[in-house]
Amino acid sequence: MSRDVVAELATVLRERRSADPESSYVAGLYAAGLNKILEKVGEESTEVILAARDVRDPGAQAQKSAQELRDALANEVADLWFHSMVALTECDINPQQVLDILAERFGVSGIEEKRHR
Amino acid sequence: MSRDVVAELATVLRERRSADPESSYVAGLYAAGLNKILEKVGEESTEVILAARDVRDPGAQAQKSAQELRDALANEVADLWFHSMVALTECDINPQQVLDILAERFGVSGIEEKRHR
Amino acid sequence: MSRDVVAELATVLRERRSADPESSYVAGLYAAGLNKILEKVGEESTEVILAARDVRDPGAQAQKSAQELRDALANEVADLWFHSMVALTECDINPQQVLDILAERFGVSGIEEKRHR
Amino acid sequence: MSRDVVAELATVLRERRSADPESSYVAGLYAAGLNKILEKVGEESTEVILAARDVRDPGAQAQKSAQELRDALANEVADLWFHSMVALTECDINPQQVLDILAERFGVSGIEEKRHR
Repeated sequence: MSRDVVAELATVLRERRSADPESSYVAGLYAAGLNKILEKVGEESTEVILAARDVRDPGAQAQKSAQELRDALANEVADLWFHSMVALTECDINPQQVLDILAERFGVSGIEEKRHR
Repeated sequence: MSRDVVAELATVLRERRSADPESSYVAGLYAAGLNKILEKVGEESTEVILAARDVRDPGAQAQKSAQELRDALANEVADLWFHSMVALTECDINPQQVLDILAERFGVSGIEEKRHR
Repeated sequence: MSRDVVAELATVLRERRSADPESSYVAGLYAAGLNKILEKVGEESTEVILAARDVRDPGAQAQKSAQELRDALANEVADLWFHSMVALTECDINPQQVLDILAERFGVSGIEEKRHR
Repeated sequence: MSRDVVAELATVLRERRSADPESSYVAGLYAAGLNKILEKVGEESTEVILAARDVRDPGAQAQKSAQELRDALANEVADLWFHSMVALTECDINPQQVLDILAERFGVSGIEEKRHR
């Protein structure tokens, strides 16, 4: 599944590079340039850090349920991965390479993956 | 056995939570605590930003090939995704949820995914 | 001079904590809470990193003069220091303590400073 | 001799640029290059964010006094300011410019400063 989601999203992100900047959020990001994309990576990284601290924070727990706080963290990580995929695409790298690296590093999915490539 | 890199890595990361802190890098990270894990997320985010700038930098290009610079960026993104998966696991969240969120947000892999869940 | 600027700004930042959130940018930040202030610290840190890379980047140099790029970096560092002073004030710490720590660490201004405190 | 912490530290940081890389931490940073300096800015920014959350965290308060947690935050901000001063010096910018910008922006120290410059 991860390979499918990342592969499909990679295709979408590549297509948007030639789209009208007004046509979508991502097309607007590419038009704004690499620095703007990297600013988003930095912002989302900070938001991941804060959301992770919120999961364990009694003050935050008084306002939201444990499930809501965990969902908020998962959403921030999704934002972070998404914007790092945009950065990769902007630099002519297929985001699927990230999963290949993780698979190789951790020795997971070895045989099955080679079949797919 | 699943073919899914994130799913398999999620399983490995969950198992390491109960491992001897001396037994692996990840087991040591869990023992060091959430702040240490989040410091790594912050560090890797900065390294992604710098590696992306290197891809376009004539100074960096004078020392490494374009392919080496792109590979370096993909490796930094892998480090960032990996440490954010460790943070999620430490907060009792399955990293697969991140891909579910991306799939839902971007309308990719809709039918196939529902079949898998 | 640094002690004067930081001391005066510290006084302003402390006073704004009790101001109407609509009355100023800083009063609005306090009302938004510690996470919002820390998000700004993270954002400005990323912008410092990008502006420093711009100073050495032929692409950026083609659009702005060396002096404009250096001024842009100094402005981003000012934003970073400013928002970290807001964070300190929100946590009941006088930003002057930062300069005391730097003076002590680097053995600068030793005698004269003790006279002032 | 100036009483100014930032001015004196700026002088020290400038002198270290021509020092033997083995002779001090800062001389080693310059030798390692701009990316290494900016990695430190990113790291210290993350540590500021985590230390600020610790000030308000009951878990952290169970291990350290409120004063220790505030001192830890002030120390992390000192690290952040210090490494951003190293970045400025590496880019041929006098760190005093940061205080000039803050003074001008916030209208503090107006008359006294003009006398000093």
